[in-house]
Amino acid sequence: MKRMQADKYFQEHRKEHLAQLIEWLRIPSVSALSEHKQDMRRAAEWLAAELKRIGMPKVAVMETGGHPAVFAERIDHPGRPVALIYGHYDVQPVDPLNLWETPPFEPAIRDEKLYARGASDDKGQVFMHVKVIEAILKAEGKLPFNVKFIVEGEEEVGSANLARFLQEQKEMLKADVVVISDTGLYARGVPSLTYALRGLAALEVEVTGAKGDLHSGLFGGAAPNAVHALVQLLASLRRADGGIAVAGFYDSVKELSAEEKASFASLGFDEAHLKRDLGVNALPGEPGYSAIERLWARPTLEINGIFGGFQGEGTKTVIPNKAGAKITCRLVPDQDPKHVQDVIEAHLKANCPAGVKLSISRGDGAKACMTPIDHPAIRAAMDALAEAYGAEAKFIRGGGSIPVVGTFTEVLGAPSVLMGFGLEDENFHAPNEHFNLENFDKGMRALYTYWFKLAQVM
Amino acid sequence: MKRMQADKYFQEHRKEHLAQLIEWLRIPSVSALSEHKQDMRRAAEWLAAELKRIGMPKVAVMETGGHPAVFAERIDHPGRPVALIYGHYDVQPVDPLNLWETPPFEPAIRDEKLYARGASDDKGQVFMHVKVIEAILKAEGKLPFNVKFIVEGEEEVGSANLARFLQEQKEMLKADVVVISDTGLYARGVPSLTYALRGLAALEVEVTGAKGDLHSGLFGGAAPNAVHALVQLLASLRRADGGIAVAGFYDSVKELSAEEKASFASLGFDEAHLKRDLGVNALPGEPGYSAIERLWARPTLEINGIFGGFQGEGTKTVIPNKAGAKITCRLVPDQDPKHVQDVIEAHLKANCPAGVKLSISRGDGAKACMTPIDHPAIRAAMDALAEAYGAEAKFIRGGGSIPVVGTFTEVLGAPSVLMGFGLEDENFHAPNEHFNLENFDKGMRALYTYWFKLAQVM
Repeated sequence: MKRMQADKYFQEHRKEHLAQLIEWLRIPSVSALSEHKQDMRRAAEWLAAELKRIGMPKVAVMETGGHPAVFAERIDHPGRPVALIYGHYDVQPVDPLNLWETPPFEPAIRDEKLYARGASDDKGQVFMHVKVIEAILKAEGKLPFNVKFIVEGEEEVGSANLARFLQEQKEMLKADVVVISDTGLYARGVPSLTYALRGLAALEVEVTGAKGDLHSGLFGGAAPNAVHALVQLLASLRRADGGIAVAGFYDSVKELSAEEKASFASLGFDEAHLKRDLGVNALPGEPGYSAIERLWARPTLEINGIFGGFQGEGTKTVIPNKAGAKITCRLVPDQDPKHVQDVIEAHLKANCPAGVKLSISRGDGAKACMTPIDHPAIRAAMDALAEAYGAEAKFIRGGGSIPVVGTFTEVLGAPSVLMGFGLEDENFHAPNEHFNLENFDKGMRALYTYWFKLAQVM
Repeated sequence: MKRMQADKYFQEHRKEHLAQLIEWLRIPSVSALSEHKQDMRRAAEWLAAELKRIGMPKVAVMETGGHPAVFAERIDHPGRPVALIYGHYDVQPVDPLNLWETPPFEPAIRDEKLYARGASDDKGQVFMHVKVIEAILKAEGKLPFNVKFIVEGEEEVGSANLARFLQEQKEMLKADVVVISDTGLYARGVPSLTYALRGLAALEVEVTGAKGDLHSGLFGGAAPNAVHALVQLLASLRRADGGIAVAGFYDSVKELSAEEKASFASLGFDEAHLKRDLGVNALPGEPGYSAIERLWARPTLEINGIFGGFQGEGTKTVIPNKAGAKITCRLVPDQDPKHVQDVIEAHLKANCPAGVKLSISRGDGAKACMTPIDHPAIRAAMDALAEAYGAEAKFIRGGGSIPVVGTFTEVLGAPSVLMGFGLEDENFHAPNEHFNLENFDKGMRALYTYWFKLAQVM
């Protein structure tokens, strides 16, 4: 089936596809709420049945210790590479219900947008994969590329059981590339592919001075002030110009290539718009990089919270004996979270003012994820996106972390292709979640050709 | 009556004096608790009756808007200077009651210490003045120096009505020197006189970044972090060496004279002991001054509290949009609180990082108080103390503020003599408050000769 024929097929079956998706969206698969435990299983079974129906020979609803996961597999080319499609069928809670224009589990189409909880995040996008596989099987009788599915039910509650499940089912899930459609386009009408995400390193620091809070009249001038010591320490972490002052912090940071820089620049990122959005008059950060480069490809160090001393109303003339702060860093390739924690800890210890004791505890750490932009699975995806949207596809990154991506890289050793079709303003996690049907249509066309292109390069 | 005779008199009447004081201490004059409202009046009336009885011709229980104040006057030398004796008859609450070895309002003498709430702070010390005036009147029939008393009932709840009362009764209370016995000796057996107290200047600062807290993944690298901005600002207030980095902060600071430095040095202040007491390994502060000099005669800037962002358990990857801190400075002569607030505000504004807004609000301000050590009223007190204790009297200062002292200076324009006989470990404001009778005895002897000496020099 050529692209023109696929277009025609998806157009002719659009109503039927949407009706099927709406049926699935009606099942309130809210993973966070125990009253939906049976709905979770129903949603998993609905998907398993659908995967079976479209022609996946091997389908299973699998126990994970939490909500079940749905597995499916079709190997039409034994010995050749395999793609693992990851997604999730669980959805966010719907509160506050009164802000929904139509009920979250009674899907409605308005202005070419499908409104329902899960429409975009992530049932809608998982469903697109199912329909694409169905279309290819109908046309060709087999898939150009070996495919497995793993669709979990706990993404919105932190994927607590996924890592262990992946580890246990490593053989079954073995793949050469992981395809995830749970992210978004850069903007409406801009086909784009997320090839990197930042990682994380967390630390807490606590400073202790005297045995207890002291009277600032009796002891002011000769007693350590824990808050002063802490602000001095924390201020020393950043340079005046916005860069991070911790020796070794930038050690393994991979610089952007010329191609990446050019691709970012071509997006025409609007700094003035961001300023207005945030309500600020400056976008401070590391010098030498544009805002979008800093957001996507440079590491950060943020104080997430600070406390110490008297926080009530009015004045209390106290010398605080305890103060603390929470710090997280966003990491980029190839920073190692442990190394980053090491150098920050060393910096704090080396700069600790006299008279106070320092206590540092380490929190989460996660490496940044990146699939090189010249990886065949990435190039094939860019081609497929460009064709489907009739526009040049853009390389983008995510400034945050998607923990499951790191988990796949770690457990399966497979690179990820983040081909997501959501848009930033589609209210995932909020009332009136919706999915632009333009991206439902074009996304399926892109995924359709993707498997053929991938088969040619991998 | 010579000093020897006075000694004999106080010795002979000791039992009787203590019995009288105990009677007064039995009245639970807790100003903070409304259930003691009648006790407050009883305590005031007890004092007024006693002042009348000992020979003060003019005595009045006066309304203040709150608890009454007791006024008394004896002018034996019209046209000559007047001393106003200030004290308070109200006491602190007694909780936790179970920690008292004997009940707070059932005075008991153990090991030459009088245990009772108010024994030291301040009924005991007010009573000493009464007994001294009585002794002189018995011996001489008149006082060598004109004396007024003002004993208030709201010192432990902030003297809220005192300033207005002083203002309203300015003529009645007019005096050339204010004598206050509500402080302490430097140490057991060390006669000492507090000739200066530090003042106060308070400020609050709040930093605001974006409209709300931001996701550190989505915005980290190009959004202002209010906590970072605040810690940078606060860290800039102090120099690395411990001095204050605010331009103009030290402008009007009066340096210690050689005599003051020598007097402080002669106290043999034990820095190692203070370190042990506080549980710290250093006593950081402004370089070039000893710890005792910094505590008493150098201004400070302390952050009393700080807040911002996430303070709960675990990690929250947020860029805080708001952070704030409370600052108080201890001031020394001749700093002006408003000037200090001005220069700190100017410093904060000049150093505010890009991307955040600064909001500063000013709190209390109070000038430092100082009576020059060569003032006749001070010299006379030093002589009287040295004689009574048989040891060289020491000049000391207080690092804190006693607001009423400033109020007297301001309203009456009279210098203060802080001749207090408490000891640091006498548990004022805590269970088992007591008063060392050694200082009850020696203190009365010092006060006795004081009036004669004062009459010779003023």
